[in-house]
Amino acid sequence: MNPDNLRIVLVEPRNPLNIGAAARAISNFGFRHLRLVKPYEVAYREARSAVKAIEILANAQEFTTLGEAIADCSLVVGTTSLGHRELQHPLRRLEYGGRVLRQQLASERVALLFGSEKFGLSNDDLTYCHWLIRIGTREEHASMNLGQAVAVCLYELSRKAAVQKVEMQKRADSQDLERVTNLLLEVLRESGYVHSASTIAKTRRLVRRLNLPAHDAEVWLGMLRQIRWKLMHEGE
Amino acid sequence: MNPDNLRIVLVEPRNPLNIGAAARAISNFGFRHLRLVKPYEVAYREARSAVKAIEILANAQEFTTLGEAIADCSLVVGTTSLGHRELQHPLRRLEYGGRVLRQQLASERVALLFGSEKFGLSNDDLTYCHWLIRIGTREEHASMNLGQAVAVCLYELSRKAAVQKVEMQKRADSQDLERVTNLLLEVLRESGYVHSASTIAKTRRLVRRLNLPAHDAEVWLGMLRQIRWKLMHEGE
Repeated sequence: MNPDNLRIVLVEPRNPLNIGAAARAISNFGFRHLRLVKPYEVAYREARSAVKAIEILANAQEFTTLGEAIADCSLVVGTTSLGHRELQHPLRRLEYGGRVLRQQLASERVALLFGSEKFGLSNDDLTYCHWLIRIGTREEHASMNLGQAVAVCLYELSRKAAVQKVEMQKRADSQDLERVTNLLLEVLRESGYVHSASTIAKTRRLVRRLNLPAHDAEVWLGMLRQIRWKLMHEGE
Repeated sequence: MNPDNLRIVLVEPRNPLNIGAAARAISNFGFRHLRLVKPYEVAYREARSAVKAIEILANAQEFTTLGEAIADCSLVVGTTSLGHRELQHPLRRLEYGGRVLRQQLASERVALLFGSEKFGLSNDDLTYCHWLIRIGTREEHASMNLGQAVAVCLYELSRKAAVQKVEMQKRADSQDLERVTNLLLEVLRESGYVHSASTIAKTRRLVRRLNLPAHDAEVWLGMLRQIRWKLMHEGE
């Protein structure tokens, strides 16, 4: 996925806050290219004077027709909230469509279209699209705010498969966990906790499921050592 | 995942548009419960008078402290845009944290906290959290608009694994595809297209990769029949 290959195209946006919000989301998710087709001029000016994501807006390109705005793109995908069933366009949920887009973005220039706040993309706009994406909102209230729709789509495009589970926190290593396990077993033994031959394995699994950060493991070790000491010196 | 188990908690929101946008996203994605902690009163009143997602706002609950707002929740997760590295909270990217939340939401009441537009969640707010979520924005511009952040989080929670590839469009069945394949082969043969023994298999794969909708397959069949007719009657 090369984010520089994406053109986010707002068709006839009316609300400066939405233009600004779209620009902010573009910046948040590391994309760069905003294009506007016949924006409501007052809205565009107002949006440009907003503080956030100023670079995206300063570099935004303005066009008078959708055809011109997407002329250099080899894949054009429209967004819709249902309602276009009569059309012969393939319609993909964002979860899947996003995956396809990511693949295409590796090698070709892609336009992602968002219609106006009030009407969405027109039937004429849709004729430029290879296929359509819809965000999986519920049918009774399908239509999203424009700025939010842009944010959700760009989130999906920059979404990482859930690889990194917990960030910026060192997890306890197995050695630490084994120390915790053994101390806990000692404490249980000292406490007269009834245990069968399977207790060791059960306890080991139990400790693993705690999913301890390294720092917390230290704390637990300290506590357990203290408990063991107390148990062994009880009554002294 | 039971959406009724989620409480979306806005802590000291200041902007009526953001409160409204949060309510709209909650409605869009099929959640129901909005809670506000010390909202700026003017903003809250203004948001309530907005048209969209009126039901969510009408049923929103207001609290004076975060502690009260989350008292009945067994899991409390805060949102943050980096910047809290010094704290000892596990921090999960939304892609993974969302998966964990979905699992928890099946059986327990979960609070998802969003801080104020300007400052996010305070250190004191964070002490109520079991862990934190961050949306994977880029470091140079990490902070999202509140309404957009709510939309992105709720999208992730209601996100479906990419099962259904293309909706509402009947794909051509294998019989149709085989018809297209055979007609195409006939046409190629009639055209004197040089082909080896492997051509049949190659062509079959080629046609499958077209991923044709049923309607389009009909159209292609018509075209190929016409071409074949022309080829066989050439020179007559």
